[in-house]
Amino acid sequence: MGVQAGLPKVVKRRVNALKNLQVKCAHIEAKFYEEVHELERKYAALYQPLFDKRSDIVKAAYEPTDEECEWKADEEEELTDEMKEKAKLEEEKKDEEKEDPKGIPEFWLTVFKNVDLLSDMLQEHDEPILKHLQDIKVKFSDPGQPMSFTLEFHFEPNDFFTNTVLTKTYKMRSEPDESDPFSFDGPEIMSCTGCTIDWTKGKNVTLKTIKKKQKHKGRGTVRTVTKTVPNDSFFNFFTPPEVPENGELDEDSEAVLAADFEIGHFIRERIVPRAVLYFTGEAIEDDDDDYDEEGEEADDEEGEEEADEENDADYDPKV
Amino acid sequence: MGVQAGLPKVVKRRVNALKNLQVKCAHIEAKFYEEVHELERKYAALYQPLFDKRSDIVKAAYEPTDEECEWKADEEEELTDEMKEKAKLEEEKKDEEKEDPKGIPEFWLTVFKNVDLLSDMLQEHDEPILKHLQDIKVKFSDPGQPMSFTLEFHFEPNDFFTNTVLTKTYKMRSEPDESDPFSFDGPEIMSCTGCTIDWTKGKNVTLKTIKKKQKHKGRGTVRTVTKTVPNDSFFNFFTPPEVPENGELDEDSEAVLAADFEIGHFIRERIVPRAVLYFTGEAIEDDDDDYDEEGEEADDEEGEEEADEENDADYDPKV
Repeated sequence: MGVQAGLPKVVKRRVNALKNLQVKCAHIEAKFYEEVHELERKYAALYQPLFDKRSDIVKAAYEPTDEECEWKADEEEELTDEMKEKAKLEEEKKDEEKEDPKGIPEFWLTVFKNVDLLSDMLQEHDEPILKHLQDIKVKFSDPGQPMSFTLEFHFEPNDFFTNTVLTKTYKMRSEPDESDPFSFDGPEIMSCTGCTIDWTKGKNVTLKTIKKKQKHKGRGTVRTVTKTVPNDSFFNFFTPPEVPENGELDEDSEAVLAADFEIGHFIRERIVPRAVLYFTGEAIEDDDDDYDEEGEEADDEEGEEEADEENDADYDPKV
Repeated sequence: MGVQAGLPKVVKRRVNALKNLQVKCAHIEAKFYEEVHELERKYAALYQPLFDKRSDIVKAAYEPTDEECEWKADEEEELTDEMKEKAKLEEEKKDEEKEDPKGIPEFWLTVFKNVDLLSDMLQEHDEPILKHLQDIKVKFSDPGQPMSFTLEFHFEPNDFFTNTVLTKTYKMRSEPDESDPFSFDGPEIMSCTGCTIDWTKGKNVTLKTIKKKQKHKGRGTVRTVTKTVPNDSFFNFFTPPEVPENGELDEDSEAVLAADFEIGHFIRERIVPRAVLYFTGEAIEDDDDDYDEEGEEADDEEGEEEADEENDADYDPKV
């Protein structure tokens, strides 16, 4: 506001008039983003049949026709007949080894492993569970309802929990903050809620038991007690920190939530719409290209943090 | 594609089916962005009366009422009466010095100076010309026409050129590239065209005359010739490098165009919608906040480059 301070009073007055116009613009912009959200809902319905077919292929509910499986790049590959013959033999050998795999095994687990943001949350004990993940769906709030979206994680029946769907809902806000209208820049995730996972006895990977030695104060004898404590796991994603009534969070919870919102947005905006590209690595190669541009800093300690910063671009909740 | 290579043939086949579904998704996405563009056109009409009023206030065609000039933050300032009195005297003194300024003098020039991306293009000789810039408008292509937008720079009559409007048009593309459908990520600027500036004789700041000594090959005598060569200027923005028929550009032109597209997008997305915030510096403070988060690297040689990288987020031609 250094500029304003030096202005003649009559000019400063007019600048205030422009600022009041700007507040009106922010409110129009909020309406714009609401309409974009409506559009997203409309298009979600157009994408759904394609996503359903994807899911059916992944879980072997549908075997695609030869025509559906034709991929131009394959035809263009310039291989000698000899090489082709060799590749064919190898493939057949692999097929025998794998004993007729159904659908696309470990499709979503592979997606998770291929995306840094998700693989960072992944623990070894999560992997056998995520092999049962069959689909991730995005559901938008109904028209007229407060803006939100729900990520649905669909599982096939498994030994770990009895739920068939795990959900995570993100509430959004698309209106300028009264006290700071100029910071408005499109819908923002404001809060999220998870779901209860009905773990089969002994299968809850979000808890671990540790043994602790306790010394009796009087007698000085030592005994070993078993204590249940939280355990690192992707499935903690479904129990995000609660925001207390006063809205104030400790630093840790705030960091967890910031990362959580980023992940939720990323799953909605990138993973669900283009899962196969994260499975094959094609979408990830693009990201790598971005990193390469900053290659000079590869040895820089800040390297990783920076990469995160840049990723932020993709997580911008604007459309 | 490392993942795919190791897959059994029957699975690879199904992955190809998913990729074909993904191409269909990209085409639906293209339609989505076209509808968003329609929405932008609709909202441009809603913003326009506010922007017109802004322009009228800037160029003193309209004097805002006291009510329109009330700004909460002013009331909230906690100043002692003595301080207020002192400030008032200072302001009055300034007012006298400036001899009743009309509208908001040098509004757009100040915006240009406050935004690094624009001030980088600005030369000292451009400033007297940009004092005459009264408005920048964004005009979208008509429905059914190829997607594009035009930046209109409106000038008051001046001694430098006879045009009242200088224009720069950006053509966009919102459809997946046949040969690389997965790289599609929303409308992209594909090309731009400027306009002819009708410079008053001797006022063309995009050219300069240099004196060059020439030696006569035979006689060995030296004469001085005057040569006209290109000169750095913001007004070169209106004569971007032409893309030759074969579409191939030299490296320099490519860099100029990449920067140009970024600037065009930034003026459309940020400057025009929130000019007053760049005038006061309020929008810039936000940017500074972003830089501060990377403060640890302030001493880093790469520091500046990085800042640019981060800015890219804002210039992403997605909506």
